[in-house]
Amino acid sequence: MSATLAELARLVRGTVRGDGNARIERVASIERAGPGDIVFAVDNVHAEKLNQTSASAVIVRDADAQSIRGNALVTSNPQLAFAQISAFLHPETHVPGVHPAAVVDPGAKISPQAFVGPRAVIGANVVLAERAWIGPGCVIGQGVTIGAGTRLNANVIVQDRCVVGADCLLQAGAVVGSDGFGFARDEDRWIKQPQLGRVVIRDHVEIGANTTVDRGTLDDTVIGEGVKIDNLVHIAHNVRIGDNTAIAACVGIAGSTVIGKRCTIAGQVGIIDHLVIADDVHITADSLVTNSITQSGTYSSSLKAEPANEWRRTSARLRGLDEFARRLRELEKKLERLFTKE
Amino acid sequence: MSATLAELARLVRGTVRGDGNARIERVASIERAGPGDIVFAVDNVHAEKLNQTSASAVIVRDADAQSIRGNALVTSNPQLAFAQISAFLHPETHVPGVHPAAVVDPGAKISPQAFVGPRAVIGANVVLAERAWIGPGCVIGQGVTIGAGTRLNANVIVQDRCVVGADCLLQAGAVVGSDGFGFARDEDRWIKQPQLGRVVIRDHVEIGANTTVDRGTLDDTVIGEGVKIDNLVHIAHNVRIGDNTAIAACVGIAGSTVIGKRCTIAGQVGIIDHLVIADDVHITADSLVTNSITQSGTYSSSLKAEPANEWRRTSARLRGLDEFARRLRELEKKLERLFTKE
Amino acid sequence: MSATLAELARLVRGTVRGDGNARIERVASIERAGPGDIVFAVDNVHAEKLNQTSASAVIVRDADAQSIRGNALVTSNPQLAFAQISAFLHPETHVPGVHPAAVVDPGAKISPQAFVGPRAVIGANVVLAERAWIGPGCVIGQGVTIGAGTRLNANVIVQDRCVVGADCLLQAGAVVGSDGFGFARDEDRWIKQPQLGRVVIRDHVEIGANTTVDRGTLDDTVIGEGVKIDNLVHIAHNVRIGDNTAIAACVGIAGSTVIGKRCTIAGQVGIIDHLVIADDVHITADSLVTNSITQSGTYSSSLKAEPANEWRRTSARLRGLDEFARRLRELEKKLERLFTKE
Repeated sequence: MSATLAELARLVRGTVRGDGNARIERVASIERAGPGDIVFAVDNVHAEKLNQTSASAVIVRDADAQSIRGNALVTSNPQLAFAQISAFLHPETHVPGVHPAAVVDPGAKISPQAFVGPRAVIGANVVLAERAWIGPGCVIGQGVTIGAGTRLNANVIVQDRCVVGADCLLQAGAVVGSDGFGFARDEDRWIKQPQLGRVVIRDHVEIGANTTVDRGTLDDTVIGEGVKIDNLVHIAHNVRIGDNTAIAACVGIAGSTVIGKRCTIAGQVGIIDHLVIADDVHITADSLVTNSITQSGTYSSSLKAEPANEWRRTSARLRGLDEFARRLRELEKKLERLFTKE
Repeated sequence: MSATLAELARLVRGTVRGDGNARIERVASIERAGPGDIVFAVDNVHAEKLNQTSASAVIVRDADAQSIRGNALVTSNPQLAFAQISAFLHPETHVPGVHPAAVVDPGAKISPQAFVGPRAVIGANVVLAERAWIGPGCVIGQGVTIGAGTRLNANVIVQDRCVVGADCLLQAGAVVGSDGFGFARDEDRWIKQPQLGRVVIRDHVEIGANTTVDRGTLDDTVIGEGVKIDNLVHIAHNVRIGDNTAIAACVGIAGSTVIGKRCTIAGQVGIIDHLVIADDVHITADSLVTNSITQSGTYSSSLKAEPANEWRRTSARLRGLDEFARRLRELEKKLERLFTKE
Repeated sequence: MSATLAELARLVRGTVRGDGNARIERVASIERAGPGDIVFAVDNVHAEKLNQTSASAVIVRDADAQSIRGNALVTSNPQLAFAQISAFLHPETHVPGVHPAAVVDPGAKISPQAFVGPRAVIGANVVLAERAWIGPGCVIGQGVTIGAGTRLNANVIVQDRCVVGADCLLQAGAVVGSDGFGFARDEDRWIKQPQLGRVVIRDHVEIGANTTVDRGTLDDTVIGEGVKIDNLVHIAHNVRIGDNTAIAACVGIAGSTVIGKRCTIAGQVGIIDHLVIADDVHITADSLVTNSITQSGTYSSSLKAEPANEWRRTSARLRGLDEFARRLRELEKKLERLFTKE
């Protein structure tokens, strides 16, 4: 795919400075760009670097456009324009059809515009909407529905009765619909609580590689519209995640917790069970959330690594705080007596 | 499957209040229940909520039974009764047989009561006991034994020579028998220590989705009877886990550590290598265990997220503790001199 | 495979004490060893234990050789010698050929010395070098190159255009080439930044079970020569990892971070995005790295679990530090006034 700079500007509602007829073939990084490439710059890139590129055009903000000597596509959101242009110049290919090495239950309803890859297994009563793309080795359980334009990369598993919306993207190895971790105690033993609910994934959701989303115990685990989840994330049973929330890698969200809309949850965060997190809450990396959060804002319990000998001293001091408190109180008393005496 | 309330009461050794002939078809949540449903209540559910449900019956403790206006199944452990009734009303279907799209080594011994799903690969000398259920896409290495009634969901991997007991459940994508992370140093380079041991999983074990259990280096990694492990957990080589211990999601247990019986290890906990953890130890979420634990009890190093500006101040203070200590000592000295002077 | 003790000593450039003709069949742990076995000892094993073993030989350091009554193989690095002898006595079998249940694109170039397991899917233009070993259920995308002697265990996924070097080992369920987590904001919504780069893995790399390595956004994610990565690790897009660095389980490394050579990163460490970590940096378990590190050395923010009631007091004190600081300042002022008055 290729286009002129002017065509790309129209696509992203930006304006051209320089040669609108410049031919653009592909996107590239500033470091590696050459003729035919378009690059983009955010604030932290110096003008010199932009002017040294051999790219055919750069995407910049209005404020930065003056300093560009070459062709520029000017827009209020260069990152968004770059994402849109990347998708336009580098479209995913989609050849419909069912690979002969797929195993498809005769009761499955597969759109003629859908693709089913080699070795995929499609269970009874599965519905694959138009342009659904089921990668090699995927396993789609009985009664699953996969929405239009949704893509499952290799070896994705969607277990019985779960629902995946339209225009979703599930990365390789993701598991949707595993059992929640629910057990009753019987003396020393754990007795399994059968997990009978579903996972319901709304439209425009991305799920990362090897991420796991457990089905609800009785009702459903729900992933809201536009939610983006990174790799190796654990979403427990009965969790509900609000629209357009983004969750970075290695996060764990425990059972029945409800997360609001437009939240951002950084890498390795843990959120314990049965909490309610408000809309527009942001949690910093590696924090642990142990209480419900009712106000939007940023929350943290992140500790930052420092040289180990300094950290050893600091964490020893931490354990000495009780002793500290005692000595401080002692001093206060002594001083109190001193003043009283006077 | 359906039953009368009286039949269910007999199943769980409870008693009926109200109509023992009430027909129960399924379990449900209190919020969604309707006629034919049975629900259960734990302490934190108010009587009003229970009396507003349209469920045909509720499972409650003796103490709560008085306040129920409808049909009740009374028992000392409602959660356990609900788990048992869920399993009874919603049994797993099990149709034995080997799917024609499975790849089975002629040397494998497969019970006629076992099931092998499409695209599963069964290696040489594998033994599948009666009612073993091998899901689509599973890979069972040479010489593996899978016990009676054990179920492996889609794409589970059990590598060569590992042993899985009876009545286990391995969730989708779990890996049993990967190599431990063992290397010798040769100057700057790491030289692999071949991992020659096995994983031995006892009976009634559950392993979560995309969880990994490494084989032992020379001897075996052992998962005790009744152990329950959640999703995305890492169990390193030579680890041994005692009976009926439960391990929540995203936990990492490093090499050669031995965990006792009936422990509970909350989400995202890390336990370093070569430790010994006693029986009946409980570790709170996101804690790091760096020393052996010889006494039962609860252990923690969890920090709780708070508003980021408050946390920033707190963690800055943490780094100022050395300075604090110096100033406190200074004050004590001054006051000492003051008193001495008098 | 078996050998005499003298032959093994030659293999690892060690010397024999005792009977060089002793026949060695296999490696074993000191606890379980019997006749025909060779074991090794590091410093923390007492001489008594070594002298009680029924092993046919022990591998020890010079310094420890005097105390051994049986046969010994003496070397400066027993752990390395043991790894080498383990590999020699227990070689991986490798029977070349393409299993009939594999799905191979006619455009793939597969060495006659390579192996492709049942149900593996090999895409167009894939190149498998000599002695490459592709396990059951692996999915190899279009244009992927797999180097000589590299082994992929069951259900490994290498997505389109990625490159894996020679003599690598990818454990079961690993995903190489998933999309990075890159989105542009468009009001409340996240718009996907297509991920167009590759993953390039150099020679002698090991990747753990269910670990995920994202492809670069525009350029490549690069895993250096001799890097060893454990299970359930997340390597984000554009990350570059220096030669011979080792990364333990459950680590997350965020986008565009560059890690030096010969680093060791312990379990559950998080490293945020866009950092540069120097060579020879060591990070302790569960630490969070939030700033670039320019000096080699050990870094930490690990907290160690203690009895929960003690920890509760400590962490409450932590939140009281502001109040502490105020009181300390108050005392200093009072004392100051006192001295001034005098």
